[in-house]
Amino acid sequence: MVLINGKKTSQIEIADRGFQYGDGLFETIKVKNGVPLFLCKHLERLIRDCKKLSIPFEDKALLKHEISVLIQEYGRNGVLKIILSRGIGGRGYRPLGKPLPTRALSIHPNPVYPESFERQGVKVILCRNRLSSNTTLAGIKHLNRLEQILASREWNDCDAQEGLMVDQANRIVEGTKSNLFIVKHGIIYTPEIDNCGVAGVVRSIVMESALEHGLEIKETRIRVEDVASADELFLTNSVIIIWPVKQFVEKVIGVGPVTQRIQNWLFKTIELEIGK
Amino acid sequence: MVLINGKKTSQIEIADRGFQYGDGLFETIKVKNGVPLFLCKHLERLIRDCKKLSIPFEDKALLKHEISVLIQEYGRNGVLKIILSRGIGGRGYRPLGKPLPTRALSIHPNPVYPESFERQGVKVILCRNRLSSNTTLAGIKHLNRLEQILASREWNDCDAQEGLMVDQANRIVEGTKSNLFIVKHGIIYTPEIDNCGVAGVVRSIVMESALEHGLEIKETRIRVEDVASADELFLTNSVIIIWPVKQFVEKVIGVGPVTQRIQNWLFKTIELEIGK
Repeated sequence: MVLINGKKTSQIEIADRGFQYGDGLFETIKVKNGVPLFLCKHLERLIRDCKKLSIPFEDKALLKHEISVLIQEYGRNGVLKIILSRGIGGRGYRPLGKPLPTRALSIHPNPVYPESFERQGVKVILCRNRLSSNTTLAGIKHLNRLEQILASREWNDCDAQEGLMVDQANRIVEGTKSNLFIVKHGIIYTPEIDNCGVAGVVRSIVMESALEHGLEIKETRIRVEDVASADELFLTNSVIIIWPVKQFVEKVIGVGPVTQRIQNWLFKTIELEIGK
Repeated sequence: MVLINGKKTSQIEIADRGFQYGDGLFETIKVKNGVPLFLCKHLERLIRDCKKLSIPFEDKALLKHEISVLIQEYGRNGVLKIILSRGIGGRGYRPLGKPLPTRALSIHPNPVYPESFERQGVKVILCRNRLSSNTTLAGIKHLNRLEQILASREWNDCDAQEGLMVDQANRIVEGTKSNLFIVKHGIIYTPEIDNCGVAGVVRSIVMESALEHGLEIKETRIRVEDVASADELFLTNSVIIIWPVKQFVEKVIGVGPVTQRIQNWLFKTIELEIGK
């Protein structure tokens, strides 16, 4: 089911700058028992990143209303996607002074993953395709996703469930669709998202939870060797929430105690949200 | 007027990967006296870049047919745009094994520019927004254009007509919508397009023409100082064809003899195409 600018239709004008140039951004939100998880954080990021791209949109109330309409009609479990583009118009790349952004909200079935991914972990490869650096775009979940698309073609489902990507300086940034955390000697590390990468919502919740519970967590530069020599690895995003990594390239890793603690905190946070 | 997969409609499904992720590429072609200029070269580039992105499309004949339908209905002068996306489907970023690409062809009025731009030249600024490096995507006219969009917001029409962009190593790559050539001591230089930038069709024609006419032309690294100290500068793209640069930042430059020779060759080439 799709709502475009509040209207039930699944079609947009090809003149929309989202289609013409990837001129916009998006959020992917898990809906569980009728509750869009971490909605406040998703909408905050969306509005913040709209500002960064000078897309004049800040109407959270309107999005919340449209989300509730979608959930009411579709059902209480699924994945909600919000695409916000700069809308139609402008001279070539140059946008209009006051564009009228397009909101495209859609809701989809949950992807089906084996339960083992969450419990025993997933296999992860190292991608050859790299992320390019752009400090202005770093962190933003924008619509320019060719790098992730090319990288996600590097493996088959039977070989791996995710691929890690490095930047131009060979530092690990994230997975194609998830953020990465590594644990070493009890300290949690996650790559800095200042040159490239997406500042994930679940990533920020993991960081807050770790601090609240007195665990040490650091944003830092991470090399491939750091990942290969870590005691524990895990991935986060808004749909999978958290997957331990059981194998990175050739190296087999167990699901460690820090990962399990963070998993439990996240699942409790979600239960609290649903219980609201 | 718009043809999407051969059908007269201006709307596409929001599930199209062009809208979801910028997963596709495009061509912009000037139509003059009913002739789409440099059509063979445009279609060659499109098919070549489809291969690079693993988008399975190579039906030039189909595109040629649809282009002729558009021109017949619309009129004999305008700007034709072909967007070719990977179509609908796949799991998130990962495309389907055999996607069905979307063709979106549209034709638009020529943009109106003062005649002086072509004769006396244009003013050009240096953009703060940079291009990021990705050797796989370099050269391709793909749909991930946020960098050009942000850069094109850096000036007003009254201040300048184009902005030059540097890469992460501070080397000049191109304008936001055009390729750059500089002339120094009679030799023509243009930035290499191996890390970022678009391998423009008119750029390739200029390079061929220069060689044919015995002028020395080199693809090389170009610094801001090289541009500032050049004897002549000019810009090319498929709509403007060729504009001399009369001012780069503060430096005023005349329309030089090499630029004029190349302008004449290009205009003659176009006359030949139209006369066919």
